[in-house]
Amino acid sequence: MPLNPQIHLVSRPKAEPLAENFQLLSLDTPALQDKQVLVKHEFLSLDPYMRGRMNDVKSYTAPQPLNSVMIGGTVGEVVESRHPGFAAGDKVVGMGGWQTYSVVDADTPGMLRKIDTTHVPISHFLGAVGMPGVTAWHGLVRIIEPKAGQTLTVSAASGAVGSAFGALAKARGCRVIGIAGGKDKCDYVEKELGFDACIDYKQHADYLSLSKALKEVCPDGIDGHFENVGGMVLDAVMLRMNQFSSIAVCGMISGYNGNPIPMANPSLILVNRMKVQGFIVSEHPADWPVALKELGELVGSGKFKPRETVAHGLANAPEAFFGLLKGKNFGKQVVKI
Amino acid sequence: MPLNPQIHLVSRPKAEPLAENFQLLSLDTPALQDKQVLVKHEFLSLDPYMRGRMNDVKSYTAPQPLNSVMIGGTVGEVVESRHPGFAAGDKVVGMGGWQTYSVVDADTPGMLRKIDTTHVPISHFLGAVGMPGVTAWHGLVRIIEPKAGQTLTVSAASGAVGSAFGALAKARGCRVIGIAGGKDKCDYVEKELGFDACIDYKQHADYLSLSKALKEVCPDGIDGHFENVGGMVLDAVMLRMNQFSSIAVCGMISGYNGNPIPMANPSLILVNRMKVQGFIVSEHPADWPVALKELGELVGSGKFKPRETVAHGLANAPEAFFGLLKGKNFGKQVVKI
Repeated sequence: MPLNPQIHLVSRPKAEPLAENFQLLSLDTPALQDKQVLVKHEFLSLDPYMRGRMNDVKSYTAPQPLNSVMIGGTVGEVVESRHPGFAAGDKVVGMGGWQTYSVVDADTPGMLRKIDTTHVPISHFLGAVGMPGVTAWHGLVRIIEPKAGQTLTVSAASGAVGSAFGALAKARGCRVIGIAGGKDKCDYVEKELGFDACIDYKQHADYLSLSKALKEVCPDGIDGHFENVGGMVLDAVMLRMNQFSSIAVCGMISGYNGNPIPMANPSLILVNRMKVQGFIVSEHPADWPVALKELGELVGSGKFKPRETVAHGLANAPEAFFGLLKGKNFGKQVVKI
Repeated sequence: MPLNPQIHLVSRPKAEPLAENFQLLSLDTPALQDKQVLVKHEFLSLDPYMRGRMNDVKSYTAPQPLNSVMIGGTVGEVVESRHPGFAAGDKVVGMGGWQTYSVVDADTPGMLRKIDTTHVPISHFLGAVGMPGVTAWHGLVRIIEPKAGQTLTVSAASGAVGSAFGALAKARGCRVIGIAGGKDKCDYVEKELGFDACIDYKQHADYLSLSKALKEVCPDGIDGHFENVGGMVLDAVMLRMNQFSSIAVCGMISGYNGNPIPMANPSLILVNRMKVQGFIVSEHPADWPVALKELGELVGSGKFKPRETVAHGLANAPEAFFGLLKGKNFGKQVVKI
């Protein structure tokens, strides 16, 4: 069996995560047991949720254990199989982690899924046609429940989830306004992703200023919002939400480094009879097939052209992850293994 | 027609409402037109929502106009009728306002409803078997959707809404924990209303301390919360909410005097996949008959014994209202006209 370069979490961050929290090792790959499959990873997904897992605190999932391979989504190819459902050469998506190979118990439901890469590049199964895409779908379809003609907003609009949200919302006849950091990202969101407008939050010193900018592009208010960020962006959006509007809460990235960030005007939840709901996409398995079908068609037909930021080599995964947390990526952040 | 003593709003409060914002006048009662009914009020309801109406700002309803009779729920007796559906002597509930008589367009749906006071004292149709009771019912049944055995909490537990919430939740087999201000109120909530426990928030300097006290009486966490207050109480409860729990947001009384009060840890909405939803009971007319039937049975059978604080005389309504906003009342605050 081949040697398996891999990255372990070896200590927990006190504030921002650092390179010293990770260690690159090269260990033997164990021989396959019955019903197991050996997968060689082509791409590793980097996602904001990983920051939460690095902490040893109660969150929606157990923390990442120390001195073991960092969790992460992967796409790759089966190189050896002792499971009747998989054969060498199959393209697959799974949760292989930050490593070059993974040995997968393929009998466990949801561990490994075969994918068809005829019309969709394989890395997109980590983004637009993968977990981030389904995340956008669930928040939009199940929580916001949009109607054609409504105005929707999404923060981190140029990212993997935000860009999928835009494509799905446009397909339902909605106006979609993005919020992103920097002129380049906003240009991309408007011109390449086809959002109706995009606001650069970095141009605004506080949430009142950002809220004013939102008012200009949302003259009829906001009917639904998908929150990837929290903090100032959420406060600004709250001031523009309409009666009976909904907010799907998917991320609070700006609060991950230890300090909770308050919500400035929670009484608006009452004043506007809003619904504010948090969710984790992995808890809604029934949505995945229908969401992946729609997302695959949007990407395969060219209606939705997701962009990626690719880091090269497993050793560069930590650095790329730090960049992701600072918003340096452009679209979906992956690592070419 | 009789002279009609009445209280007008004549100026808007800058912070706390003051006596000078109100004026007592005695005006003529106009003669009845066809389809109108003259009602002599027995009791006027005082409710926290009235504080919001005194401001000239966008809220869920239009502000109370200046120099006209303050809005308010009333119960009383028909003294003259030019509508075939009502006769002198009928007991009725309506929105007669802060005055002694009202002339009601009885053809307008929802303006006036006949009530049966055989088993339920008439003033309770302003409280337990009225708008506050239906408010508790909607938040509990439609937003929290409780299951038997779950732990629920409610703030302002000794008030009209809170006490009805407790009775309705106990009827569904839930554990109910109240939060109220002062030992007397907490004793009342535990001993007379039959809550499983009641926490005195005045014994706690901050939300972390209050949250610790909640942990002791909610060892399995909180599955549903009904929020009448906001601020420190909401922050404390948030820290104890379970996964997939819900908060029905009915009141943010502590923020009415102008300054929005932030929510300390909104990221818990995501961490615990919570639903936080605001509502106004008047927007859910379909719930009223079923809710009133259940509440009437609970009160009529003696299972739920709501308490009232009664102010005597219309002229004392403003003072009683200020007391309500400071939590001086005990149960439902009404004014005997």
